[in-house]
Amino acid sequence: MFEARFQSFEDRAERAASGPRLAALRTELARRGLTGWIVPHADPHQNEYVPASERRLAWLTGFTGSAGVAIILIERALLFVDGRYTLQAREQADLSLFSIEHLVETPPDRWLEQNLTASDRIGYDPWLHTVEGAEKLAKACAATGAALIPIEPDLIDAVWTDRPPPPLGPIKLHDLRFAGESAEDKLARIRAEIAKLKADALVVSDPHAVAWAFNIRGADVAHTPLPLAFAIVPVQGRPSLYVDGRKLANDVRHRLEELADVRAPADFAPALSALGESKKTVRLDQATAADALARLVIGRGGKVTRGADPIALMKAVKNSVEIAGARAAHIRDGAAMVRFLAWFERAAPGGKLTEIDAVEALETFRRDTGLLKDISFPTIAGAGPDGAIVHYRVTSKTDRVIAPGELFLIDSGAQYEDGTTDITRTLAVGEPTAEMRDRFTRVLKGHIAIARAVFPDGTTGAQLDSFARQFLWAAGLDFDHGTGHGVGSYLSVHEGPARIAKLGTSALKRGMILSNEPGYYKTGAYGIRIENLVLVVEAPPVAGGEKPLDAFETLTLAPIERRLIAPQLLTADETAWLDRYHARVAETLSPHLDAETRAWLAAATTRPLGRD
Amino acid sequence: MFEARFQSFEDRAERAASGPRLAALRTELARRGLTGWIVPHADPHQNEYVPASERRLAWLTGFTGSAGVAIILIERALLFVDGRYTLQAREQADLSLFSIEHLVETPPDRWLEQNLTASDRIGYDPWLHTVEGAEKLAKACAATGAALIPIEPDLIDAVWTDRPPPPLGPIKLHDLRFAGESAEDKLARIRAEIAKLKADALVVSDPHAVAWAFNIRGADVAHTPLPLAFAIVPVQGRPSLYVDGRKLANDVRHRLEELADVRAPADFAPALSALGESKKTVRLDQATAADALARLVIGRGGKVTRGADPIALMKAVKNSVEIAGARAAHIRDGAAMVRFLAWFERAAPGGKLTEIDAVEALETFRRDTGLLKDISFPTIAGAGPDGAIVHYRVTSKTDRVIAPGELFLIDSGAQYEDGTTDITRTLAVGEPTAEMRDRFTRVLKGHIAIARAVFPDGTTGAQLDSFARQFLWAAGLDFDHGTGHGVGSYLSVHEGPARIAKLGTSALKRGMILSNEPGYYKTGAYGIRIENLVLVVEAPPVAGGEKPLDAFETLTLAPIERRLIAPQLLTADETAWLDRYHARVAETLSPHLDAETRAWLAAATTRPLGRD
Repeated sequence: MFEARFQSFEDRAERAASGPRLAALRTELARRGLTGWIVPHADPHQNEYVPASERRLAWLTGFTGSAGVAIILIERALLFVDGRYTLQAREQADLSLFSIEHLVETPPDRWLEQNLTASDRIGYDPWLHTVEGAEKLAKACAATGAALIPIEPDLIDAVWTDRPPPPLGPIKLHDLRFAGESAEDKLARIRAEIAKLKADALVVSDPHAVAWAFNIRGADVAHTPLPLAFAIVPVQGRPSLYVDGRKLANDVRHRLEELADVRAPADFAPALSALGESKKTVRLDQATAADALARLVIGRGGKVTRGADPIALMKAVKNSVEIAGARAAHIRDGAAMVRFLAWFERAAPGGKLTEIDAVEALETFRRDTGLLKDISFPTIAGAGPDGAIVHYRVTSKTDRVIAPGELFLIDSGAQYEDGTTDITRTLAVGEPTAEMRDRFTRVLKGHIAIARAVFPDGTTGAQLDSFARQFLWAAGLDFDHGTGHGVGSYLSVHEGPARIAKLGTSALKRGMILSNEPGYYKTGAYGIRIENLVLVVEAPPVAGGEKPLDAFETLTLAPIERRLIAPQLLTADETAWLDRYHARVAETLSPHLDAETRAWLAAATTRPLGRD
Repeated sequence: MFEARFQSFEDRAERAASGPRLAALRTELARRGLTGWIVPHADPHQNEYVPASERRLAWLTGFTGSAGVAIILIERALLFVDGRYTLQAREQADLSLFSIEHLVETPPDRWLEQNLTASDRIGYDPWLHTVEGAEKLAKACAATGAALIPIEPDLIDAVWTDRPPPPLGPIKLHDLRFAGESAEDKLARIRAEIAKLKADALVVSDPHAVAWAFNIRGADVAHTPLPLAFAIVPVQGRPSLYVDGRKLANDVRHRLEELADVRAPADFAPALSALGESKKTVRLDQATAADALARLVIGRGGKVTRGADPIALMKAVKNSVEIAGARAAHIRDGAAMVRFLAWFERAAPGGKLTEIDAVEALETFRRDTGLLKDISFPTIAGAGPDGAIVHYRVTSKTDRVIAPGELFLIDSGAQYEDGTTDITRTLAVGEPTAEMRDRFTRVLKGHIAIARAVFPDGTTGAQLDSFARQFLWAAGLDFDHGTGHGVGSYLSVHEGPARIAKLGTSALKRGMILSNEPGYYKTGAYGIRIENLVLVVEAPPVAGGEKPLDAFETLTLAPIERRLIAPQLLTADETAWLDRYHARVAETLSPHLDAETRAWLAAATTRPLGRD
């Protein structure tokens, strides 16, 4: 009855044939007179989701996590992963071949500085490292007298005989009724920013920025409608868009040619060289621009300035059409969530449901809307102790029955053409313990503190982050992730520049959409997270107020489990917020529900809170 | 009856003889083949209070503010000051000679980059700029092709004929009953830090750090018992202390010679050269080390590493003796404050008191303790609109009568051998308006939110700062300064590394003393600030808690004006905090007060709150 088409539950524990692959790579090293090679988990755009053709680290080491680097030397091989992935790396990599290092405590550059000697010659692919990343590596090598040498094409590609072809997802135009602003107008605004930055041209290396600027969407990576492409926007004159022509249907090509010179990816590097040749000042995005781009410009005498991609901020501030789209998407998605929650409440007490059952059901309810393009990320569905693993992804091997007495955390999202969603609910099967209710209520109080926050325009997410944590702190608890991340408009579910986190130093601007997702995780026992998306809006003016104020409008519509709330821990203001939110959820979603689900929602949004 | 011995009310509006001084400097420039000279408000230690012999900027320009830079070119002269000082600079400097620039919006390096040409040769004194500061200037000059040239001695000194001699305040030993740790033990801990930093020697360029490490105090600058001195601490072997021998009585010299080689200031530069000569790695404090120090080491082939002075953190974490001293100092200071507050309440309604009267009275009550060494900074005493000027300093010219219906803000502190204090109270003369009570109560709620905060060990001040602002934000208000700064132990009233501020990214550690001083300022009308010092302490453990928790213990003891509080704005928890605080103030201070003042305190800590 239920089916997941966008998410696989495949277990990826099968070990890569790392032995022969390492041997082949080392032969290649020797042939080139190198003593080492660096293999990051990265593509030339520093994408969050890396296409199969770029998964060199997984091919070589077997490790499939979303962050990692390998350093391959003649006699040793090292795999660097962060704390989230230590266990997974030990399972996936052949420990007779690789030693596992801590990516944060001993990052690769520090390791190189401590272990290389002056005779070492370390190679790297300049398309897979940012300018700053390459600078760090170069500095570390230089400190030991070793050489760091950029080499292309990537050495792995010479030995990866069955490397998949690059993706060729068809590009679609993102309609003005979703985008709200024409590509012409966006490009005019971008040119004005380039002029302010005193640059001659902007290299757009982030495909999200390309998608936004040209009002296109693609299908090259999972869960995000990204078109892998580069663009160069000169301060005056026509932009150039570098994209594989096989992704372009005639109408799309025709529209894009109105906006830009559409060129083959192979033309990109020569175009950068030409900018250098004519001594241009080229602005690169410090977050995504590959070292190779800077080399091409500077190598021919051009000047590079690095900084935030100005498109990132423009893209993060949604216009009124995108905001209307987000509201519509959240009503649609909320109705699907409510169908799921009603189904779950009927089915779960039987004691047979598994995590995968829940994922499949939720995806099916979302597909039933008829408008689901993809899920916005692999659903995190953790029963009992699995809920405490913050980045848990259920596989056929880890799948658990959701047992009575357990909490079930489900974090999921959808891609619709009018908006991207991301929601987490924590559900109780059977009777929760007093501790669970206490923790859930503290998380909820933090969630409400963010939802109700009023703050001067220009406040950063870092200034708000502690509001979400204060009630956990008071009980000697905390959570080890940010409180919120930016969310795109039918783009990535993780979008910069603003976030609500200890280090979220970008200002929150009206029109930005962020998540509000405090949590609490008890290792080996349960996980709690309550996540809604919020929109930064102008707050109603206060008599006598001196500063323009902002506030959050909660976009996500779905009931929060009232039976998990210890009512005495809530203040009157918090209870009022919860009741208003639930009334809005019921009122807004009811017209979109069948009678049975509508009745369930009416009950779920008004039933008694839990015991104290 | 009352008298201020430590604070002057002199008006400094008389104009400097800038015309001839500029002419003499320009003659000197021409003689050296320079086209410009940079004059910062700084001494070789980057001290907050600059001794008279180092006030080159004031001598040249007439500007006496605490931050500023002049750039003197052949045809133009510019004075850079920040927003606080724009008006003062326009009054003090001769505007026919100097144009005023904004220090923050167009800092000197940016101005140089935009205005110099390739033929310019700009000189600077490498003892008055940090390494980083000099690097910025050099980069700016290089971008235009101009040269930046270090020159010593300072060019100003060649033309400043009546330059005061450097201060020779006698150095005293800071007794173990105040310091709590011997200099030997401190030096052993410092050496361990130097080893961790993989340096061969630490240059101690911050006189606060010298004072702390050697358990000495001096009298070279106002309000802070600083001995101007440098030290070099090698990772092994005897430290060297560079200090003018005329500051040392025999017993002090004898004690210091047990700890270190005591050398003349003139020996300091050759010692740095010698470290360079022997290829040592020398650690410099990035906040205070002059560019000259790095040049001396690197010029002879040594290596310099820059970073936070490890002594700064050690000094900020007070030991149990210093904490006991702080508590004793705050009882003593609180009793003096209460005498002042009781006197003020009797005297103010007469309508004749002025700001200077209040400053003189308060200093006199503090001197009456018999233990006052100095005030810890010039008292900020602002009646009505003067209270809204955050860095107001009353002079005989600005002095105002404190009129009925006005608020009076008084921010002051004391230096006792056992501790440094800093307290602000806002007092009402006559009946405050409803708006004043509303604003005062919002500031108080923020103050209480900090005072009651409980947070995981390692939390930064930036993570707490918004707790102090949230109630003002809700009314469209805010304040434009940090919530709190670190405070030394019989040292500077402004001490790093931790602070409670948007950019306070240093972790709060148990034993640190900080201020808690939210405020609100209505330009042209009134200012409000409520400041207590707080000590970071371990919070009582919570059942089920997972993290070590910290909290603040409020050290400052003095009533907060209850008639300025709108009671309905306080929660029950906030009211309980206030009542507990006031009960503690009355109980702790009463034994130290005469009967009349004791009765006043009993009333002041219990009287009805204001109207809503």
